[in-house]
Amino acid sequence: MKNILVLGAGRSSSSLIKYLLEEAQNQDWIVTVGDTNLEMAADKVNGYAKGKAIHFDIENIAEKTKAISDAHLVISLLPPKFHPLVADTCISEGIDMLSASYVSPEIEAMHGQAVNKNVLILKECGLDPGIDHMSAMKVIDEIKEKGGKLQAFYSYTGGLLSPESDRNNPWKYKFTWNPRNVVLAGRGIAKYIENGHYKFIPYHKLFQRTQTIEVDGYGSFEGYANRNSLNYRSIYGLEDIPTLLRGTLRREGYCKAWDVFVQLGMTEDTYPLINLSEMNWNEYTRTFLPEYGTSTEEALCEYLGLDPQGEIFKKLEWLGLFSDEKIGANDGGTPADVLLSLLEKKWSLDKDDKDMIVMQHQFEYTQNGEQKRRTSSMVIIGDDSTYTAMAKTVGLPLGIAAKLVLQGKIKLKGVQVPTQKEIYQPILEELEKVGIEFKEMSD
Amino acid sequence: MKNILVLGAGRSSSSLIKYLLEEAQNQDWIVTVGDTNLEMAADKVNGYAKGKAIHFDIENIAEKTKAISDAHLVISLLPPKFHPLVADTCISEGIDMLSASYVSPEIEAMHGQAVNKNVLILKECGLDPGIDHMSAMKVIDEIKEKGGKLQAFYSYTGGLLSPESDRNNPWKYKFTWNPRNVVLAGRGIAKYIENGHYKFIPYHKLFQRTQTIEVDGYGSFEGYANRNSLNYRSIYGLEDIPTLLRGTLRREGYCKAWDVFVQLGMTEDTYPLINLSEMNWNEYTRTFLPEYGTSTEEALCEYLGLDPQGEIFKKLEWLGLFSDEKIGANDGGTPADVLLSLLEKKWSLDKDDKDMIVMQHQFEYTQNGEQKRRTSSMVIIGDDSTYTAMAKTVGLPLGIAAKLVLQGKIKLKGVQVPTQKEIYQPILEELEKVGIEFKEMSD
Repeated sequence: MKNILVLGAGRSSSSLIKYLLEEAQNQDWIVTVGDTNLEMAADKVNGYAKGKAIHFDIENIAEKTKAISDAHLVISLLPPKFHPLVADTCISEGIDMLSASYVSPEIEAMHGQAVNKNVLILKECGLDPGIDHMSAMKVIDEIKEKGGKLQAFYSYTGGLLSPESDRNNPWKYKFTWNPRNVVLAGRGIAKYIENGHYKFIPYHKLFQRTQTIEVDGYGSFEGYANRNSLNYRSIYGLEDIPTLLRGTLRREGYCKAWDVFVQLGMTEDTYPLINLSEMNWNEYTRTFLPEYGTSTEEALCEYLGLDPQGEIFKKLEWLGLFSDEKIGANDGGTPADVLLSLLEKKWSLDKDDKDMIVMQHQFEYTQNGEQKRRTSSMVIIGDDSTYTAMAKTVGLPLGIAAKLVLQGKIKLKGVQVPTQKEIYQPILEELEKVGIEFKEMSD
Repeated sequence: MKNILVLGAGRSSSSLIKYLLEEAQNQDWIVTVGDTNLEMAADKVNGYAKGKAIHFDIENIAEKTKAISDAHLVISLLPPKFHPLVADTCISEGIDMLSASYVSPEIEAMHGQAVNKNVLILKECGLDPGIDHMSAMKVIDEIKEKGGKLQAFYSYTGGLLSPESDRNNPWKYKFTWNPRNVVLAGRGIAKYIENGHYKFIPYHKLFQRTQTIEVDGYGSFEGYANRNSLNYRSIYGLEDIPTLLRGTLRREGYCKAWDVFVQLGMTEDTYPLINLSEMNWNEYTRTFLPEYGTSTEEALCEYLGLDPQGEIFKKLEWLGLFSDEKIGANDGGTPADVLLSLLEKKWSLDKDDKDMIVMQHQFEYTQNGEQKRRTSSMVIIGDDSTYTAMAKTVGLPLGIAAKLVLQGKIKLKGVQVPTQKEIYQPILEELEKVGIEFKEMSD
């Protein structure tokens, strides 16, 4: 009987735990779910004979050592800062560990120890990072094997609303993950390479420099550049590629409207606003505008050159940026805090809303002197508000990896990410069986 | 015989030391100049019987205590971080101290001790802060004394080039103080109040939201908002004023061209560029642009909507932003570092260049039910590259304050800034005699 220990029973664990419990019915497994909230852990395994819930507090060393040494495999969904604490015990106890978060320098430094102890620490095995690595490397390796030379690689991922849920919402967007991160997205500098030239986009230009992406059957999206695409040259073995850009997807029209917040300074998070407790939304908006002696609506259109009848203005109005309703915020909030509180009213998922994950890779390469192009696209729609597309795409790669590791089908040791064929090929094959698949087009 | 100790013999000390040495000929004074560079200190007092140079290292406690206890008054031109060390000894030795830099929280906390020891610590007594406080408070107090109620106060200061030195330079600007601070100017958020509404300008809009300022006989300037105008409500006793904005002056046309650097991201100072050692200026510029498949010049005009025949583009071209000359920078430099190195080639003062300080206050107020407006403007041109307008306007208020303190004409004790009539009135009267005067206009 093999014991799989899942650490963390939060929202993103639903699909992973369900997958493991259902597989356990045909395998010699038990699935132990540990959380500081025992009730939440119990709820996740409820009704499954092979499920077990335990109290688990990462900062309680005895509890940690006991739970991990009782396991044959550990999957950590804890916040990334706790992963070194888990990995450390896994290595000393000789237990393989899987997670969906990025390899930190601290984890990277554990590679030698893990190899010595014959332990696999498989990281970045969720959606992004995770499925992005696997699906990109599959095509990159295929192109290379056929003697192709990659000229350009663009890769976009977005956590969005399904088409059936985005009606009556001009932004066609709601929060499907950490709302605060959405409001602060893109702060800093976006770095990529194009035609052999390094490119740097400052934050205030990021949402203006978007690409349009078409996904067969799902229409148009737009992508803005992620913080650092340059790292991916070494991760994907594409050191000499002239063009490499990774980006985040939104529905068409979103970025131009979001850029209004950026231009106004509403996404600033470094200073507190004044008199917030007395302010209404119209006054909040006016704070970021010069005084034109006109209405706030007219001043905004004048300031940023917006069409008062246009789509951008409509999106802003729909949010309530010009209303005389009190903000209801306490003094001390930043512009971003206040904007977040407005968006949370309008962009929180309703019970019936379904989310949607979209990923598209674009490859441009030369083969036998010919210019070629290939795209590989995935669209996953959530089942409901528990088994969301996000939970499925983050959890199922981990669940499948767990099965493959326990079955001895992944033999690599040390700190790994799923860019190697030995890992990505069997995981992608299994993902296809549970409906997570890519459609390829070439010309 | 009274001994005035001047700490620091750097560039900005020239006018102060000359003023003190010349006054000393008619007063019972000697002037001691202390610097870690004894030669530089000696050079400043050379030829004056009442001048004396000493080695002074603020971090040598014995040297510090000796020099200060030998003095009857200390004027510190040291970097602001050292002022608490000077003030501390001045207070324990019972010696008055003057300086041109801002009151820090550390200095502010010394007020009670200074009062107990009957010591004056007069801060912010240079140009900005200094002359700005004095000249503004003079008018503010006059308006209040006549029963006027201030509605708006705008105050602008700029360190610029004199008209005779700004020909053949389309920017009409050179560095007359710390060049790095000029390149990084405005980072953060500018805060002010207008018509009773708090206003916050993010950095990427700062150089677009300028005011035009006319100075009689000197033409048009433009002002961009300083970081925090709101503080000045309490400093100037204008807690209820609906509009208060302080700003920095540049020659007309400067800000729109500078904004190109801001929009491109060339003033970013938070990340290193890549491949700098191999890059030429054209490639540097291209780094901040999308790839349009055109020349860098065309791409820039397309990207930011610039007229290739226009004044903005001419300014950029004049700097050499499109040249194929190597940058000659080491890897690891930020965009701002590289921009600075370009500007230093073109914006360093020549021997014959003269600088110019421009300050203008604008007051709008009601008096007996009438709307009134007053402006108060000062223009000071440097004599040469030693007795610059900057050195005069920073140094002479300190020199005059020193004379008034030694003559017993300023009796205030504790930590003070020159916003009180007892201080500003005699200083402004003396400044007028040495040619530092304001012209007033009202309507």
